[in-house]
Amino acid sequence: MNQSSIGRRFVLTTWGESHGKALGAVVDGCPAGLSLCEEDIQGYMDRRSPGKSPFATARKEGDRIQILSGVFEGRTTGTPISMAVFNEDMRSRDYSNIMNIYRPGHADYTFDQKYGFRDYRGGGRSSGRETLCRVAGGAIALRLLADLGIHVTAYTKAIGPVACQDFDESQIANNFLCMPDEQAAKKAEAFLYDCMEKKDSAGGVIEGRITGVPAGLGDPVFGKLDAALAGALMSIGAVKAVEIGDGIQAASSLGSQDNDGFAWEDGRIVKTSNHAGGILGGISDGSDIIFRLYVKPTPSIARPQESVNKNGENISLEIGGRHDPVIVPRAVVVAEAMAGLVIADALLCQASSRMDNLKKLYQKP
Amino acid sequence: MNQSSIGRRFVLTTWGESHGKALGAVVDGCPAGLSLCEEDIQGYMDRRSPGKSPFATARKEGDRIQILSGVFEGRTTGTPISMAVFNEDMRSRDYSNIMNIYRPGHADYTFDQKYGFRDYRGGGRSSGRETLCRVAGGAIALRLLADLGIHVTAYTKAIGPVACQDFDESQIANNFLCMPDEQAAKKAEAFLYDCMEKKDSAGGVIEGRITGVPAGLGDPVFGKLDAALAGALMSIGAVKAVEIGDGIQAASSLGSQDNDGFAWEDGRIVKTSNHAGGILGGISDGSDIIFRLYVKPTPSIARPQESVNKNGENISLEIGGRHDPVIVPRAVVVAEAMAGLVIADALLCQASSRMDNLKKLYQKP
Amino acid sequence: MNQSSIGRRFVLTTWGESHGKALGAVVDGCPAGLSLCEEDIQGYMDRRSPGKSPFATARKEGDRIQILSGVFEGRTTGTPISMAVFNEDMRSRDYSNIMNIYRPGHADYTFDQKYGFRDYRGGGRSSGRETLCRVAGGAIALRLLADLGIHVTAYTKAIGPVACQDFDESQIANNFLCMPDEQAAKKAEAFLYDCMEKKDSAGGVIEGRITGVPAGLGDPVFGKLDAALAGALMSIGAVKAVEIGDGIQAASSLGSQDNDGFAWEDGRIVKTSNHAGGILGGISDGSDIIFRLYVKPTPSIARPQESVNKNGENISLEIGGRHDPVIVPRAVVVAEAMAGLVIADALLCQASSRMDNLKKLYQKP
Amino acid sequence: MNQSSIGRRFVLTTWGESHGKALGAVVDGCPAGLSLCEEDIQGYMDRRSPGKSPFATARKEGDRIQILSGVFEGRTTGTPISMAVFNEDMRSRDYSNIMNIYRPGHADYTFDQKYGFRDYRGGGRSSGRETLCRVAGGAIALRLLADLGIHVTAYTKAIGPVACQDFDESQIANNFLCMPDEQAAKKAEAFLYDCMEKKDSAGGVIEGRITGVPAGLGDPVFGKLDAALAGALMSIGAVKAVEIGDGIQAASSLGSQDNDGFAWEDGRIVKTSNHAGGILGGISDGSDIIFRLYVKPTPSIARPQESVNKNGENISLEIGGRHDPVIVPRAVVVAEAMAGLVIADALLCQASSRMDNLKKLYQKP
Repeated sequence: MNQSSIGRRFVLTTWGESHGKALGAVVDGCPAGLSLCEEDIQGYMDRRSPGKSPFATARKEGDRIQILSGVFEGRTTGTPISMAVFNEDMRSRDYSNIMNIYRPGHADYTFDQKYGFRDYRGGGRSSGRETLCRVAGGAIALRLLADLGIHVTAYTKAIGPVACQDFDESQIANNFLCMPDEQAAKKAEAFLYDCMEKKDSAGGVIEGRITGVPAGLGDPVFGKLDAALAGALMSIGAVKAVEIGDGIQAASSLGSQDNDGFAWEDGRIVKTSNHAGGILGGISDGSDIIFRLYVKPTPSIARPQESVNKNGENISLEIGGRHDPVIVPRAVVVAEAMAGLVIADALLCQASSRMDNLKKLYQKP
Repeated sequence: MNQSSIGRRFVLTTWGESHGKALGAVVDGCPAGLSLCEEDIQGYMDRRSPGKSPFATARKEGDRIQILSGVFEGRTTGTPISMAVFNEDMRSRDYSNIMNIYRPGHADYTFDQKYGFRDYRGGGRSSGRETLCRVAGGAIALRLLADLGIHVTAYTKAIGPVACQDFDESQIANNFLCMPDEQAAKKAEAFLYDCMEKKDSAGGVIEGRITGVPAGLGDPVFGKLDAALAGALMSIGAVKAVEIGDGIQAASSLGSQDNDGFAWEDGRIVKTSNHAGGILGGISDGSDIIFRLYVKPTPSIARPQESVNKNGENISLEIGGRHDPVIVPRAVVVAEAMAGLVIADALLCQASSRMDNLKKLYQKP
Repeated sequence: MNQSSIGRRFVLTTWGESHGKALGAVVDGCPAGLSLCEEDIQGYMDRRSPGKSPFATARKEGDRIQILSGVFEGRTTGTPISMAVFNEDMRSRDYSNIMNIYRPGHADYTFDQKYGFRDYRGGGRSSGRETLCRVAGGAIALRLLADLGIHVTAYTKAIGPVACQDFDESQIANNFLCMPDEQAAKKAEAFLYDCMEKKDSAGGVIEGRITGVPAGLGDPVFGKLDAALAGALMSIGAVKAVEIGDGIQAASSLGSQDNDGFAWEDGRIVKTSNHAGGILGGISDGSDIIFRLYVKPTPSIARPQESVNKNGENISLEIGGRHDPVIVPRAVVVAEAMAGLVIADALLCQASSRMDNLKKLYQKP
Repeated sequence: MNQSSIGRRFVLTTWGESHGKALGAVVDGCPAGLSLCEEDIQGYMDRRSPGKSPFATARKEGDRIQILSGVFEGRTTGTPISMAVFNEDMRSRDYSNIMNIYRPGHADYTFDQKYGFRDYRGGGRSSGRETLCRVAGGAIALRLLADLGIHVTAYTKAIGPVACQDFDESQIANNFLCMPDEQAAKKAEAFLYDCMEKKDSAGGVIEGRITGVPAGLGDPVFGKLDAALAGALMSIGAVKAVEIGDGIQAASSLGSQDNDGFAWEDGRIVKTSNHAGGILGGISDGSDIIFRLYVKPTPSIARPQESVNKNGENISLEIGGRHDPVIVPRAVVVAEAMAGLVIADALLCQASSRMDNLKKLYQKP
């Protein structure tokens, strides 16, 4: 696998820098015959955009996705689907204030160490803006899954210290924070206004649920479905922990509590609980898949921070301009996209894992 | 990447079932000229073996690793290093009690759903015994890293509800639980005896620290170093959550708390704290890399559990025989192995990421 | 490796259809710090374009390459380099004459069988036009190689029955056919005019030479350098055979004739002949690498051909419009590009194959 | 793809050196439920062994293949199939005569250049003996294909200057040279006796035919089926050229000759000729796939050759011992194996390339 791609059969490759000409995504391996148009993808892109949220920086351009290849007469052709968002907001700016310093919590220093120099314009490739390519690619995966009855839903579980106590799915789209709990959303908003006043920032927790996944996806050892999810979700910038099912709680529970029983129900086998979060031995068990990701606070804050410049000087740094006090709500759709990519890939891989499948597809009558 | 392999340049492929003829590992891409012999690897294998621990089932065979290729006159040749452990303990057994039932918390059901049937002998490929191949492959990675001044150390951070309060590295090898805190180890042992009496099992937490990693390893987007670690560590059976640095705590802290400052010290740049756990923007920053994995309780317990058989009957299942009440201590070396594989792979990949590196290696005088 | 990518460390992914919005290429893994601008790449693109050749169809657009990411202040950043050519010539056309028939020698039938339908506009993804993406990606590889003293030169060795008898490198750019033999070029031109008059087409042979390759590139078994070259060159549409060194002749020679001797010369080892074409055991030996590819005649011809339509009818097909009577000269730069990609990839891979290399790059002082 | 593996879904990884403890192969991705036992594979291994041929060196051991994992109760389980051949003939020998010299036509020099040193025992990893692992892996692919009605047959087309004029399939197993032409086989045998007398060696041509391949396998650009075949076949040691269909002849024919017409026949579309060799635009067209590989003469010959040693001396080298005067007949089954691997892999990949395939496999009733 090369460094900017993810997936084995449903492969997403992304490119682009925050303040370059464009950012884009190539999906290679999407099966032929999936109904797809730009509006399908734009819907996901718009969920990532700040809208009127007081907690997100507006960028001028509308981030319009264009499909450049791989779709013909409204259907995917089986060949690479190339998509791009062109940066309209490309006026030349003055970067002299950041090109020689290293912002705490950002990748400025590590990029310089890795490559010898960096594209310092707006964070370049390390900007959160790269996630729009994940969303574009993930949107296609999510549509493919939907055609097969598989759905991914993510939402904000907590903002800073404020966690949801309730789950009302209809609320998710009703507040700027994507929280399924109206009261928690209000408390979290108040908390964020306080953060902003203190020139500080907050993190939070995103939870996701995947329904309709057939049992049997994922591979036994290194290709475990939970391992693929963990890798994909941790690759979202600012994520510092990933859980599956009971996650961290599992470590302090007993076997008799954590094991999910089996039972026959209407002629099929079901689990009587779902501590495992839908994955056993790295393979989907037919229950809902549950995941959680923990997001660190936005590193750009206006408070003074200790840092350095390239001239060998220690400096006090105040990051000007307007910055999102929290990125969690905008990352919700990114989490859905990454989960969708992993499940779609596992589904395509599974197609060739049994001789009876191959015979269904290839055996001559 | 195929399903039973991990890595892009330093690639480990494993094979084998718990009660088959043998289990093995092939390391492809190990650089030529690394000093290596079977004893180097056996040392790691032995750390995985139960020894005299009262908390681990002894298996008769000594799990002797054999190197079958790729090493000549004490050095790696650059070609695939094949290793195997032959199962000596291969008497034919009676599996009729497990072949038609699904054990809770195990992969029996998901394997059947995935493949249509399964090798039910001792869990087949889903047995924890597959981890000995990870340790064999990881041992080579760890030796390679050691030659370059990079070291991985893992230990048990918690067993069930008992967490270490102290860190005394010399204690790790002094108790059966690999805990760096003598008092905690004693409490945890008492807790485990209680579990065993109740025919129950426990989980726990493993923490690891990687020192000496040069800044610049890892790739910006999908190939982030923390993403690779998360995927590799989550692929260890029974792991339900993975953290990097402050991990879950980061989600409820503020930007001003979570950001690590930079400072010039003795002519080089250092971080003034390490909440990030050594990785910024997916790339190593030269600080220690800190990771944590959360392990669920051993699913095999002797208490009655509700389950099903293939005849459409609900059953009450009591798993006989002796089973480890906790697998955490034996997984410590597995975590080191997986972390070692990830870092070695990133190191090899980085070799070709800069023109100045290539010129050092190839430019004619 | 996904289907539309090539390479392990220097990875080219291409996308786009002949008559879609655009075609493009993403190079992932190009080392940071390579000097690069659009004009560097355009030079190669122009060599693929028909120019004023009477043997090549002009397409209106100039095939201007744009770099969309991965280059900053004139140097590659180490992140993906995205390039695109936008199709300006996009007026809606009438494809009713080809959408329901299968052209002999083309991929119309096989695309329909593979995907269930196809983008029939101008051949879609199977058009020769996809090679412009290979050239764009290859141009970057060739520049990287040039920086390290490695050069790839290809030319037309034969057109139909007319083969070069002489090698005068200065002639290659002096005739429309890229032949290094003035007399042969004249004969071949006459032959092609005759083909065109007969509404027929011709094939030919391309030969390439790679100089300056260090000994040691390529891997022993499946990753042999000649295997990689053969795969890459055969992937160019219309190529039906690939040779390395003496190629086909080697099969009828004797061991005493085919073996290349070794000798010490000025303190270094040289080969006293080069029947092997610069590769021994799949690994470069420091001599020039020699390859040849055999290209079939252009399948689009105006003569009547027997074919079928989708209505179950046998038809006589005459392909109207103007078509290249030979594609060989335009494929010369494509062959250079593919060879360049293979050598660059092998060079990057080799960087991590020896411990002494790693120590040069990473060992602390 | 790592260096010692081939395939994307049906992946073969091989390991082992000529005079090491063992050689082996791991097949990862073989679908579950294929009937398989050691005897199935041994049949192919035996075809590679010298038998009583006067043109092949006998090695003492019988090259017995052992299956170590991945098969349970006579069927593949879907997990990695590990196989090994243990070298019984392991007495310590004296290699002082070859360890410091470079044999012409062998990989001694290039291995030393690549890795800094080499396992010089019997050629180590560069020995023709590595092909037994290809045959073991290929045997599984060939069985899988046979279950779906796809068959690969290869044979010797020419030995040195003696080419078959006739094709009688029943003859292939009737002579030591695997030639389908009794008269040609006799002439070729006489030619080889003459070579042996002159202490020289010969090369030859292998042709293969794959029947029953469904239309639609292979990918449009870099993953073309002919490209994959070319890469796989060229990776067999000593192969210097690969052809598909008319191959080299295509380059000098006209479009009107080379194009294969289409016709409706019994309600389905057929080609009226097969110059293309069963592949159009890189995708199988349902006709037989035809390939040819050109093998150089065995490099080990007893005649004096000019070479060098590591002490800086030019030497005259006579390679003692008994060596095959030709390797072509033993490479026939290797060619079948490699072709089988490529087709099996393309077949598995194709399973996920269409939404209608996925719906057949996954859509809920």
